[in-house]
Amino acid sequence: MSHPVYKTDKSLELFKRALKVLPAGIPGHLGPVESQFIPTRAFPFYADRVKDSYFWDIDGNRYIDYMCAYGPNVLGYNNPVVEAAAAAQREKGDCMALPGRVQVELAELLVDTIEIADWAYFMKNGNDATSFAVMMARAATGRNKIIRIEGGYHGVAAWTQAAGRPGVTDADVGHNIILPWNDVAAFERAIAEHGSDIAGFIATPYDHRIFADNQLPAEGYWQKIRQLCTANGIVLIVDDVRCGFRLDLAGSARYFGFKPDLACYCKAIANGYNISTVVGIEALRTAAAHVFYTGSYWSAAVPMAAAVATIKELQRLDGANLMLAKGKALTDGLVSAAARHGLDLKISGAESMWYMRITNDDSLMLQQEFCAECTKRGVFFVSHHNHFINTSLTDDDIRQTLEIADEAFSIVAGRNPQRLNK
Amino acid sequence: MSHPVYKTDKSLELFKRALKVLPAGIPGHLGPVESQFIPTRAFPFYADRVKDSYFWDIDGNRYIDYMCAYGPNVLGYNNPVVEAAAAAQREKGDCMALPGRVQVELAELLVDTIEIADWAYFMKNGNDATSFAVMMARAATGRNKIIRIEGGYHGVAAWTQAAGRPGVTDADVGHNIILPWNDVAAFERAIAEHGSDIAGFIATPYDHRIFADNQLPAEGYWQKIRQLCTANGIVLIVDDVRCGFRLDLAGSARYFGFKPDLACYCKAIANGYNISTVVGIEALRTAAAHVFYTGSYWSAAVPMAAAVATIKELQRLDGANLMLAKGKALTDGLVSAAARHGLDLKISGAESMWYMRITNDDSLMLQQEFCAECTKRGVFFVSHHNHFINTSLTDDDIRQTLEIADEAFSIVAGRNPQRLNK
Repeated sequence: MSHPVYKTDKSLELFKRALKVLPAGIPGHLGPVESQFIPTRAFPFYADRVKDSYFWDIDGNRYIDYMCAYGPNVLGYNNPVVEAAAAAQREKGDCMALPGRVQVELAELLVDTIEIADWAYFMKNGNDATSFAVMMARAATGRNKIIRIEGGYHGVAAWTQAAGRPGVTDADVGHNIILPWNDVAAFERAIAEHGSDIAGFIATPYDHRIFADNQLPAEGYWQKIRQLCTANGIVLIVDDVRCGFRLDLAGSARYFGFKPDLACYCKAIANGYNISTVVGIEALRTAAAHVFYTGSYWSAAVPMAAAVATIKELQRLDGANLMLAKGKALTDGLVSAAARHGLDLKISGAESMWYMRITNDDSLMLQQEFCAECTKRGVFFVSHHNHFINTSLTDDDIRQTLEIADEAFSIVAGRNPQRLNK
Repeated sequence: MSHPVYKTDKSLELFKRALKVLPAGIPGHLGPVESQFIPTRAFPFYADRVKDSYFWDIDGNRYIDYMCAYGPNVLGYNNPVVEAAAAAQREKGDCMALPGRVQVELAELLVDTIEIADWAYFMKNGNDATSFAVMMARAATGRNKIIRIEGGYHGVAAWTQAAGRPGVTDADVGHNIILPWNDVAAFERAIAEHGSDIAGFIATPYDHRIFADNQLPAEGYWQKIRQLCTANGIVLIVDDVRCGFRLDLAGSARYFGFKPDLACYCKAIANGYNISTVVGIEALRTAAAHVFYTGSYWSAAVPMAAAVATIKELQRLDGANLMLAKGKALTDGLVSAAARHGLDLKISGAESMWYMRITNDDSLMLQQEFCAECTKRGVFFVSHHNHFINTSLTDDDIRQTLEIADEAFSIVAGRNPQRLNK
């Protein structure tokens, strides 16, 4: 059975118009060239509308969306429960001269929900959360240096970027100590060298970098890191922006059995409404109150109402386990489909936000071809970033995905016979 | 005639609940203690709802709101035209796996509207815009240092804060050169000393700092700065986050007769919907495309639809001139009312976002008392920040404001007879 191949002429036409008034046409991680790593001929550039697990591009093609807007879509796009809560708050007010009641209600809900949370602080971007966490670590310790993991992503502020990237000064990154993931010995050496000036350690719950198989924490890694941080007065920060609510509603740290001092959330927290948060332990409440950190929209009430509804709905559905199970069913099917065509598909990371790679090809080009063939037929995969499951994904969506993936594997295998597994 | 004094017991009760789960109860610039500088007994802490020029606190009191959510409310809260545009886009989708058509439409509208704009780039916070502008200046010039103005506010990222503030390292601010406002000679000296390493100059269109009379640009100041920047290869950045659309829809720089290379907008751009932008000249398009800068919600379509509607509505109303005229009527009345009670009220800055200060008292305590007495009677003034006009403010709102201000001036003058002007 063969699936029709989409045309995306209107996307291309609008993109040409965009190139006149937007640098790179579509800037940032949704851009078709720099970030998606799908041959542009296969790629839709603009969405017309979304619902549940789907988006429709401006040429009218429907896609089963495994990027979920890069994470925020956790309950299905335009989830009726979340939309009703947001609409009720919007009728009263959103960005007001004062916060709404819901600011307190959301903070209480987070303190009740996330294992380590004694308080919550709200902002907008995931990067606002990670930057604030780092500033709190410095404020609380009076130290300067921050340990982070090689290849880890914590946003786009200059301090998060690699030395030498455009616009990044040496001073921006001069206090970063960059260590390999899962390497306790390297962590101990860093403490031996810089211990008295290390304010904090920031890392994602597991290594979900782009362009490489994702790596879960090694047995005992986080527990040992927790001990070392405690013993050396280092603030332990988990950047749960991407994993948050897809592993464990009480925090991805609980999923891996350790307790950070601060945890950063964004993306899945409000099903696409614009909010992020840092939650923390009692001992850091004073630092949180003293670092000056605010913004024009940070007390806006609608995203807070959406967050309350999203978290309660995730609780009702046991959302994290549901997404883990759906991801398992999907990725098991993808591995089998690949094998039928002599291809070895490696799945890594948590199944609710799995990373995949065809191992037959070190250049990663088979991977790009496979994602392109899927996307052209209505299964939106990108090549070198983890994907995301949302709770509205149906068994029929999974079945359709596996059919299309089977066809795509077949095409890719047929084009590259020399690379097939024997 | 005497106006009833509001009670805010429910605000206080909820605030006590908030203190358990939010650092400082209400963090940031909407917090009642650190930022508003109104005696807390006068101050409502939470808004229940908003409409047009008003908010109602959770005790049911109505306020004429001269903070406009610190700027975003420019057409009146819940403006029907903006809400309809936002609702139509929301029905289709907001934060999607790809941008919507409206991203291109908004960029085109900004290029048509803002004098210097050859392109636009979208983000969320005002501070995202100022940080991106600084990174672009560095990327474009290969230099490190940034000139900024003493007391100028460009957000909360560590580089924008003063050395020694909690969480701020010396490295964060080490490349800042801080100069006095309106001082061309100081600018020339900075060039003589650091010229080959100065990437950019960032400043607001005029000096609208807190705790001091606001200062318009001196005659010829911006024109001379423009010449110096051009002659020395320095990127000229206007932070129009606070002034934007309240002086001139084509940019506050046009209002003051000069052309920056980059201009940052937020607040008034979408009547409270969460978006900011940097617009720039052709020569910086490449830098904009090369600095890596993106976020989870940055292509969300609803705030872009709201921005298109807001800008068109401001054009239809000649919004900037309308707000300047309303501000003039209000502030003329306030000065007269103060004088009737022997108090000298000094108005500074643009009338659409005026700063006011009772000059009879260097301690600024009379100012705090006056704002408190107004706020307790339904005119929401803060003490040491500029205020904001929105286009929905009515003549009757102004009349009521002046009545209440008259009573507040009378009370303050009566309590402080030794300070009256003779």
